[in-house]
Amino acid sequence: MSKVTVNGAADMLAAADRILILIHQFPDGDTIGSGFALCHALQSLGKTARVVCHDAIPEKYNYMVSAVPQPDFEPDFICAVDVADAKLLGESLQVYADRVDLCIDHHGSHREFEKHLLLDASMGANAMIILQVIEAMGVTVDQTMADCLYTGIATDTGCFKYSNTTPLAHRMAAQLMEAGAQAEPINRAMFDIKSRARMHLEKLALQSISFYDHDRTAVMCVTTDMIRESGAEENDMEGLSPLTRQIEGVWVGVMLREKADGDYKVSIRTGTHADAAAICGLLGGGGHPRAAGCTLSGTTDEVIAQVRDAIQRAVPRITEVK
Amino acid sequence: MSKVTVNGAADMLAAADRILILIHQFPDGDTIGSGFALCHALQSLGKTARVVCHDAIPEKYNYMVSAVPQPDFEPDFICAVDVADAKLLGESLQVYADRVDLCIDHHGSHREFEKHLLLDASMGANAMIILQVIEAMGVTVDQTMADCLYTGIATDTGCFKYSNTTPLAHRMAAQLMEAGAQAEPINRAMFDIKSRARMHLEKLALQSISFYDHDRTAVMCVTTDMIRESGAEENDMEGLSPLTRQIEGVWVGVMLREKADGDYKVSIRTGTHADAAAICGLLGGGGHPRAAGCTLSGTTDEVIAQVRDAIQRAVPRITEVK
Repeated sequence: MSKVTVNGAADMLAAADRILILIHQFPDGDTIGSGFALCHALQSLGKTARVVCHDAIPEKYNYMVSAVPQPDFEPDFICAVDVADAKLLGESLQVYADRVDLCIDHHGSHREFEKHLLLDASMGANAMIILQVIEAMGVTVDQTMADCLYTGIATDTGCFKYSNTTPLAHRMAAQLMEAGAQAEPINRAMFDIKSRARMHLEKLALQSISFYDHDRTAVMCVTTDMIRESGAEENDMEGLSPLTRQIEGVWVGVMLREKADGDYKVSIRTGTHADAAAICGLLGGGGHPRAAGCTLSGTTDEVIAQVRDAIQRAVPRITEVK
Repeated sequence: MSKVTVNGAADMLAAADRILILIHQFPDGDTIGSGFALCHALQSLGKTARVVCHDAIPEKYNYMVSAVPQPDFEPDFICAVDVADAKLLGESLQVYADRVDLCIDHHGSHREFEKHLLLDASMGANAMIILQVIEAMGVTVDQTMADCLYTGIATDTGCFKYSNTTPLAHRMAAQLMEAGAQAEPINRAMFDIKSRARMHLEKLALQSISFYDHDRTAVMCVTTDMIRESGAEENDMEGLSPLTRQIEGVWVGVMLREKADGDYKVSIRTGTHADAAAICGLLGGGGHPRAAGCTLSGTTDEVIAQVRDAIQRAVPRITEVK
């Protein structure tokens, strides 16, 4: 693996054709926005390019998908975007795991699997790096790219609310709005409108919250039964994990999500008092300082015990009496 | 009344001293941020200045209030900020209503009451105009001013989510962060943090939602029992009424709040398919096209029946089969 700069990545893409763009499983606004913006930029240079994902793209992102033609072809160059680990490509894309020519990522916890890597963990959203690469390729950002890139920045920064929101993130948002990004309808679709199933699931999830460590740790558990009862789909799960961290006095917000195989997907959100990546690192996972994850096996109680142990080891002060 | 430019307003303030700054009643982040940023900027020029408000400043804004000394003095110059109408000064400040030398405001609906007016309705937040005035006075924005002005911009734009968020709002946010604005803790305090009582009440409120009119009407009921059980206080009620409107496919979101006397305070929120003011007009209330209210008596079922009847009369299409 060799690290490349923005210009290095732009040169590689400019020299390539028949480019397959891989995005991560359980796709979110940043990986989708990064993938389709890059795909559209490459197509505007006359190249053949397509985005592939292990999972179906949730309907609310259709405004990005429908704007970029997806031709079928045998790839000569493979580029992964916002993929922190080959595992996150998902099962159906594992065939490409050791064939990735270039990965463009912003996760500090990135685990190398690619031939060439453009990594910038200072970027709150991967779409911010993609914008730099698109400009380095000499492509003028049009409305389609602007909508995609704005979506990536807005969703990964919690609409400019999270600690990963930098002055550059705001300046890029301004630039993308001037390039035609339809910020308001995008924000409404991403942050306001919730499906009935999501509302139902949110109600059940709130009922499940338990508190530990002098109420500085809050654990929310989403079981397969809850998901079935609510009728929620994958995209209804987005934005659930921050709920616990929003409770006054909570340092560490934990969401346990039971998977079909009985394992638990653990999402951890923290404020300035704790490092989510450090906690998940102790549990075989990783991520960002304020948002990280891992996967654990066992009963709900066993999983909660493992997570609480990791939290207390990574954040000893959390057990101090107030 | 004469209109003035940013530079004109800056010159007037630079020439003045013993400046009393008036902000509007029921103060929000923008009027408070505008007032205390301007006060601190004037003090940094060696001037005597103070901010006054008819109401007490809510505790969550203390980081702005505590950062700016508030001396007592007889004013020679009176400046109102973010005050769209003399009435909004509140009862205790009516004594100043016809003595305001300068008003700096961003409301298109501004009703003139001042000697000189700096009005820019293109600004999503009044704090954006204040930043321009502070710079025009030659004052360097320090962290205190940056915190105040960032708060004003973030709160009035719904953390950069609403349609009033312009590229300039994003660029000013970037500039203020570089000037030291503590964006993340401010965002957390303004938009994220909910008391446990609020979380509890939200859970109970979500449980109470019922749907009518092919799921285009959603009714949420908050009883005195729920408020008692959750331990919620008045400020925990903020932002509850829009919840039903956020549900996909809902045209009319209704929140019933049982009052101490047993009557119900009815809040109605609508999208583009229905007129909230028209519905509440049929029930003896009123308001805006997207947000209106009224007060009704009777049992919960009787009140819901009255509201549903008004909705069906004001929005006949709501009963049409999909």
